[in-house]
Amino acid sequence: VKNNMGYDLRHLLIGSEGTLAIITAASLRLFPAPGETATAWVAVASPAVALELLQLMRDALGGTLSAFELIDATGLGFIAETMPEVAVPPDAGTGWCVLVEATDGVGAGLAGRFEEVLATALEDGIAADALIAQSGAQRDAFWTVRESIPLANRRIGAINSQDISLPPSRLARFIAEARIAIAAIDPTIRINCFGHLGDGNLHYNLYPPKGADRAEYDPLRSRLKDTLHDLTHALGGSVSAEHGVGRLKTGDLVRYIDPARVAAMRAIKDALDPRGILNPGAVLG
Amino acid sequence: VKNNMGYDLRHLLIGSEGTLAIITAASLRLFPAPGETATAWVAVASPAVALELLQLMRDALGGTLSAFELIDATGLGFIAETMPEVAVPPDAGTGWCVLVEATDGVGAGLAGRFEEVLATALEDGIAADALIAQSGAQRDAFWTVRESIPLANRRIGAINSQDISLPPSRLARFIAEARIAIAAIDPTIRINCFGHLGDGNLHYNLYPPKGADRAEYDPLRSRLKDTLHDLTHALGGSVSAEHGVGRLKTGDLVRYIDPARVAAMRAIKDALDPRGILNPGAVLG
Repeated sequence: VKNNMGYDLRHLLIGSEGTLAIITAASLRLFPAPGETATAWVAVASPAVALELLQLMRDALGGTLSAFELIDATGLGFIAETMPEVAVPPDAGTGWCVLVEATDGVGAGLAGRFEEVLATALEDGIAADALIAQSGAQRDAFWTVRESIPLANRRIGAINSQDISLPPSRLARFIAEARIAIAAIDPTIRINCFGHLGDGNLHYNLYPPKGADRAEYDPLRSRLKDTLHDLTHALGGSVSAEHGVGRLKTGDLVRYIDPARVAAMRAIKDALDPRGILNPGAVLG
Repeated sequence: VKNNMGYDLRHLLIGSEGTLAIITAASLRLFPAPGETATAWVAVASPAVALELLQLMRDALGGTLSAFELIDATGLGFIAETMPEVAVPPDAGTGWCVLVEATDGVGAGLAGRFEEVLATALEDGIAADALIAQSGAQRDAFWTVRESIPLANRRIGAINSQDISLPPSRLARFIAEARIAIAAIDPTIRINCFGHLGDGNLHYNLYPPKGADRAEYDPLRSRLKDTLHDLTHALGGSVSAEHGVGRLKTGDLVRYIDPARVAAMRAIKDALDPRGILNPGAVLG
């Protein structure tokens, strides 16, 4: 329901991590379950080509495109290493895959349009290979692979984990430049870069080489983090895309956000919580 | 781009009517022009039936449904009276019409689905009559009628104009109860109730009978306004849907909004504009 009565407190509280108020009730908007779902596992030559595929699929499928997950073959290797029970689809040797899904109402002819745009992508060399799920079970199997990545990551053990976002036009450049910057610090570090490409959101995680103890990399952690954050910031991105500032990133907030914005945030915090009793230490430190 | 770095100042500023800050720059997100558009002028028996049609079309067309404009035959009469150059489609004598539009990418088969759901609506007695635009010129003609309503309204001259929103489940009840409440105050008053039904937004305007001078109704204005506002509030709606609080509705804000919310708004206003120099008198008075 449209409502223009005064300031939008709802969006101010969303993402404020309990530092401005305590949310005691919420209304959920329900949407009908999609009548038709089309899912594919697509191998692409690079993140830049994945972005070309995203554009092609958006043009063809519009708002029905509901997932576009970039997957790094490093993550698939981690699954093979730590969760052998999970069947990993082939990546066509390119090193990069995308899990793509579209949903629409029954009878809208989604399956045909989905197959057609993937056929175009294959013909035009944008997709190196594409597997369309032929059943609900195959769709679930694709998603199981995607959802196993964070668990496999934990079993390998990260040196550093980032949750960042970038303008779509800078995503491929970030992935290329970050790889060079990390290699310059230590070429043995393994990178697993995956995320929700449609949102410009990357989970960018660093791991020791196979067999090495991640504790050996402790002295590099802060330099690795700063390198990734500075590059993200320089390319117009955010160093906290989904997960919030919490207590870990309060220094980043002051470092990367315009001082006038931070001053406005502090003024709002002081106005709504003058005694500083709401989740002290989070967001603004 | 996803961004969770601190408080969402953007949404706080949107709709704050210049009382918290001055916006000096904005980024616009562009969407491709729709490849296919389907538009129809549909006569319905009542606002309640219009809402049934909305549900039917949402189920069939999903997110492609882009406009669902309720039109009161009173408004069509005002056009006939003041703008005879505008050709008004027939309303099948029901007193209520809907201008409905859907947009999708080329090749998505929108026209067929749109025609099919309207055929179902006619068969099921939800639509009393339906005209599907057969050309861009006919589509433009339908929209010209919709867009002529505010101009015709001004030529007639309103006693009172409201911009309200209601939960979808309460819209039909509001329209029925408001008609009774207005008639109880003065049965000669003409009502023109139109709006964006998909958003729960109604423009609810009152006019003198044909030939009467609206100045005669000045003594009733405040009572008419309070009657409509109280009913809107009692049914869980907002007395400012699109147009904001401005200076006219500062009293309504204090009257209808929870005092704790108003106190939070005042605290934010004082924090960001301690000297009260930003658009003084608007929103919070």
